[in-house]
Amino acid sequence: MKTRDRILVTSLELFNLCGEPNVTTIDIANEMDISPGNLYYHFRNKDEIISELFQTFEADILEVLESPTEPGLDMMDYWMYVQLIFEKMWQYRFLYRDPITILERNDRLQKKFNRILDRKRAAARGVLLMMREETLIQIRDDDLERLATNMLITATYWLNYQHLRNLGSQRGDCDLETGIYQVFSHISPYLPAAGQEMLAAVADTYLGAGDSALE
Amino acid sequence: MKTRDRILVTSLELFNLCGEPNVTTIDIANEMDISPGNLYYHFRNKDEIISELFQTFEADILEVLESPTEPGLDMMDYWMYVQLIFEKMWQYRFLYRDPITILERNDRLQKKFNRILDRKRAAARGVLLMMREETLIQIRDDDLERLATNMLITATYWLNYQHLRNLGSQRGDCDLETGIYQVFSHISPYLPAAGQEMLAAVADTYLGAGDSALE
Repeated sequence: MKTRDRILVTSLELFNLCGEPNVTTIDIANEMDISPGNLYYHFRNKDEIISELFQTFEADILEVLESPTEPGLDMMDYWMYVQLIFEKMWQYRFLYRDPITILERNDRLQKKFNRILDRKRAAARGVLLMMREETLIQIRDDDLERLATNMLITATYWLNYQHLRNLGSQRGDCDLETGIYQVFSHISPYLPAAGQEMLAAVADTYLGAGDSALE
Repeated sequence: MKTRDRILVTSLELFNLCGEPNVTTIDIANEMDISPGNLYYHFRNKDEIISELFQTFEADILEVLESPTEPGLDMMDYWMYVQLIFEKMWQYRFLYRDPITILERNDRLQKKFNRILDRKRAAARGVLLMMREETLIQIRDDDLERLATNMLITATYWLNYQHLRNLGSQRGDCDLETGIYQVFSHISPYLPAAGQEMLAAVADTYLGAGDSALE
């Protein structure tokens, strides 16, 4: 791997592990066993590294966010869709740790991050509209709007919430499956009985799988 | 007001306005027009100020969180209850800005903050159980648990979400009423038609009032 790419990979690892505010360019150079001068040859400062990581994250998440549009999707398809989004957030979780601290330093990232939130909300809304179209759910327009926002909030802050709840403990905080289920639980009351059973069955499959993967 | 109390009041104002990581003890002393030495006579460092502010916040919010237990409460009573909680969070909003950044420095605050989250979730759960008891809502046990968590997440992160959405704009971010409505929208699908109408009527009253207060 080229040094430039290694700097990005190492930075992402350290930011995710320790929190971006706690990692300096010196830490990154030390971790890679290169001189700070070598690092500065590729990136002038930490914000340049963050910007570059953000660009990759943005491209990746916008691709993952493309709403599923084929008709006739079932609950498992929707679950997989949300899982891909959660996995991408997990991969760049330092951005979701304390977003304001990172974003207030950088106007351009503020706009980009909010554009991602816009797209995430639009994706949630699109899925809900399609589910309503296919009479999978019954919901009024204004309820649908608030539902989309609540789904966005749960999805955006799940990693932060898990981290917060596990501060000071030895537990990991990568319980993505429970977070995905929390997102789906917003839709649950709008599903008919058969749909709720299907959701419970899908959740059983994935929550079980998640547990064993963590062991 | 005694100097010690003035330090606490000024610190809370500056933390809320600028974000705690961006405020130093020197900033606080400057804002008060006292010498740093005078400040250090009362508080050894910023963490001591934060601990003292946190103690007041904790006592206040735990008092506000006491679940309403009288039978026969109506939607407006519940709304007022959530509003008091939101107002207390707003008063100490620096704690909700980027909680992990503040809490990871301080083991004792981590435990205390999580104890508050526990109590908040228990309060949401208590209200839902009472509403079910009084047949205001119909909900299964497992749905009730996930609902309580989702309400907790929306309530805990609403201020952060608003701040994030308004970064870089001139808009204020004190739209508490919309946040309170978001929390209630979680319950909405479990309400019978009459209950949903009552919620909409209460929301109309308060959302209107909030708007004019901001103008």
